Amino acid sequence: MESIKENIEKANRQAFESMINTRPVLVDIVEARKAISFLNKDYHLTHAGPPLSWERASGPMKGAIIGAILFEGWADNEHQAVKLAERGEIVLEPNHHHSAVGPMAGVISPSMKVYVVSDGELRSYSNINEGLGKVLRYGAYSKEVLDRLRFLNTEFAAALTAAVHECVKETGGIDLRNLIAQALHMGDECHNRNVASTSLFLREIAPYIARTSDSETARKVFATIGSNVLFFLNMAMAACKLMTTKAHNIKYSTIVTTISRNGTDIGIRVSGLGDEWFTAPAPVPKGLYFPGFSETDSNPDLGDSTITETAGLGAFAMAASPAVVKFVGGDVKSAIEITNRMSKICHGKNTFFTIPYLEFDGTPTGIDIRKVLRLGIPPVADTGIAHKTAGIGQIGAGIVEIPIEPFKQALRRYGEKYGLS
Amino acid sequence: MESIKENIEKANRQAFESMINTRPVLVDIVEARKAISFLNKDYHLTHAGPPLSWERASGPMKGAIIGAILFEGWADNEHQAVKLAERGEIVLEPNHHHSAVGPMAGVISPSMKVYVVSDGELRSYSNINEGLGKVLRYGAYSKEVLDRLRFLNTEFAAALTAAVHECVKETGGIDLRNLIAQALHMGDECHNRNVASTSLFLREIAPYIARTSDSETARKVFATIGSNVLFFLNMAMAACKLMTTKAHNIKYSTIVTTISRNGTDIGIRVSGLGDEWFTAPAPVPKGLYFPGFSETDSNPDLGDSTITETAGLGAFAMAASPAVVKFVGGDVKSAIEITNRMSKICHGKNTFFTIPYLEFDGTPTGIDIRKVLRLGIPPVADTGIAHKTAGIGQIGAGIVEIPIEPFKQALRRYGEKYGLS
Repeated sequence: MESIKENIEKANRQAFESMINTRPVLVDIVEARKAISFLNKDYHLTHAGPPLSWERASGPMKGAIIGAILFEGWADNEHQAVKLAERGEIVLEPNHHHSAVGPMAGVISPSMKVYVVSDGELRSYSNINEGLGKVLRYGAYSKEVLDRLRFLNTEFAAALTAAVHECVKETGGIDLRNLIAQALHMGDECHNRNVASTSLFLREIAPYIARTSDSETARKVFATIGSNVLFFLNMAMAACKLMTTKAHNIKYSTIVTTISRNGTDIGIRVSGLGDEWFTAPAPVPKGLYFPGFSETDSNPDLGDSTITETAGLGAFAMAASPAVVKFVGGDVKSAIEITNRMSKICHGKNTFFTIPYLEFDGTPTGIDIRKVLRLGIPPVADTGIAHKTAGIGQIGAGIVEIPIEPFKQALRRYGEKYGLS
Repeated sequence: MESIKENIEKANRQAFESMINTRPVLVDIVEARKAISFLNKDYHLTHAGPPLSWERASGPMKGAIIGAILFEGWADNEHQAVKLAERGEIVLEPNHHHSAVGPMAGVISPSMKVYVVSDGELRSYSNINEGLGKVLRYGAYSKEVLDRLRFLNTEFAAALTAAVHECVKETGGIDLRNLIAQALHMGDECHNRNVASTSLFLREIAPYIARTSDSETARKVFATIGSNVLFFLNMAMAACKLMTTKAHNIKYSTIVTTISRNGTDIGIRVSGLGDEWFTAPAPVPKGLYFPGFSETDSNPDLGDSTITETAGLGAFAMAASPAVVKFVGGDVKSAIEITNRMSKICHGKNTFFTIPYLEFDGTPTGIDIRKVLRLGIPPVADTGIAHKTAGIGQIGAGIVEIPIEPFKQALRRYGEKYGLS
């Protein structure tokens, strides 16, 4: 037993170090089909969370799938799109199986543009954030939703891509680690609050936009980014995906490298347990609802965005973001308490991501399934809340406790795999 | 005595309410000579702090005056400029006598562009921040300093002015109160830390820049603003100047409406005591020095930027800005302690400017000279530290205690004026 414990400690140290020492850089924006081979075919979509069939999908996930089908032109209307899905002609796989992440439904289709984030070795991907209101990621698929998606995917993405290329030529790309580190000193936790990160991103990219776009396009790009306080979220998620991927598949490691929800199930993956998912029914978040909505309207938890918590941001960094409590509920004391509580189940503290109010202590990083189970402390996540009916969109934001069950499954599997049972 | 006490309370309430309810909006950028009638003549300059003669001016103030003379072309070289000043041909008056403020030396000359900030009733002014390194406001006046000043004053200012005009047409201007309120939730105290405010300003102005500037100019404007983390400071100062002006000249009020330093003297003015200055020798700040410099190199305290503290920002809002301690020294606890200490000498809490970590409590606002003297608690300010020799520039940043002596003078004068002696 001494030997296995040492192996675990060593493996976890390696996983933790790999995670925090990754330097994710935004290097490109490309069509998803060119980045993700699975999406280089029609009728293929990726989605948030663990694997899911159309039949088991929740309202907003179904809505987003319908929207993506319409966006791709695989069907002419909602009815046809649903038929297509019901006949099993839409092939679904998790984003996480393809180095990708997407917030809420997280549906990515072949012609959607994705960010390419790299550390020079591996790559990760995420889609472009659509903004607030009625959006595909919350299951909306009306004409205005698809029109906006088309604008983001064509004119907007083209301008941003040209700027990113120029930036890559000059500086190698946008250093997301540095940007996130700054944003944590400016009240973001980079999951539900991305005000600072978005502003910092705009500040960095603006000179390149000016150089590569005509005035009218530049104006639209600035207005689009400037009016979406969550714009940076998807880049933060891709950065976290890269960090956690670097920590994945390390023999003996008990560090969690994925937490994600598809609106039906929540699933986790563990570094030393390969690509197996351990799942449980997705819980309904507790939080602040927009006027006219309540918990009975809420869809179970949804989205790959818990990759931020998996990498030590989001709720884990909540003490850096007292203003986020106005959005997800609670008070400043509870924000600090959450960060301190999450420290107990993490391997260590990030050395790049620090929290001014905790005297520049690092964000708790690298969830250890052993600690979760020994202490009975579930990880928590900040999250948006989707209406359970497709097409309605966001109805609130809150905090969700990740169920303990998948951690139990993972530990059992760990025992089997490493002969500890 | 009952009656005078009631009068004071009523007057202070009025001063406080006027201060915090002012909504300063950036509405224009114009040549100083067009905004400030005193500057509509050659050989006239305004400067930071209370009144000052050339003879009594410190190194960096003299340097800035020389630089302004060269900038205006009133002399061909340093030697001539000094002669001009020594012969008494340069007429100096405080910015504060002309609704203006400027950081450090704060020298404003007739052709310099100034921000125009207004609440629809009054106007205040400040110059354009030059960035870090060798700059006029720290007394540098080499060719590169003047070249940069010319770029800021012509190409840059023209582009920014066009954008501001467009913004005014569309939205009435940039709402500085709203912007400062957001920045306080993003780790700025808007004196020594203006990272968030600058980013937010850039985010707001970017679409207008794109619309009104050609690509190359827009690129330069974005790069200039984006690379200067203090860019917003001067706008924050003009906003605070407007707020404090609204609180000035209220009979019986014991609220401080000006704190400012000219590098030789520090001076305060009090609402109920009109335009009289109460002064003391300017102290040397305590702080963190850049490598190679120490307190013996330091000039006495300098600049109108303590208008931020006078309006409840800067050190008074330090609990909102834990990251500023990395710059001015101290730790997070001391930042919170300073805000709490300043609360004791203030009339009340701002309702627009709040501090997330103090559970969204307002920033302490409206220094009451009675409380300063009764409790023996001097106001403190965040500040940049200038080298005492002209032309060297900033050598550190720190915290300075405003001497108690001017408050004593003010109270004596108050007794005389209101018959309490």
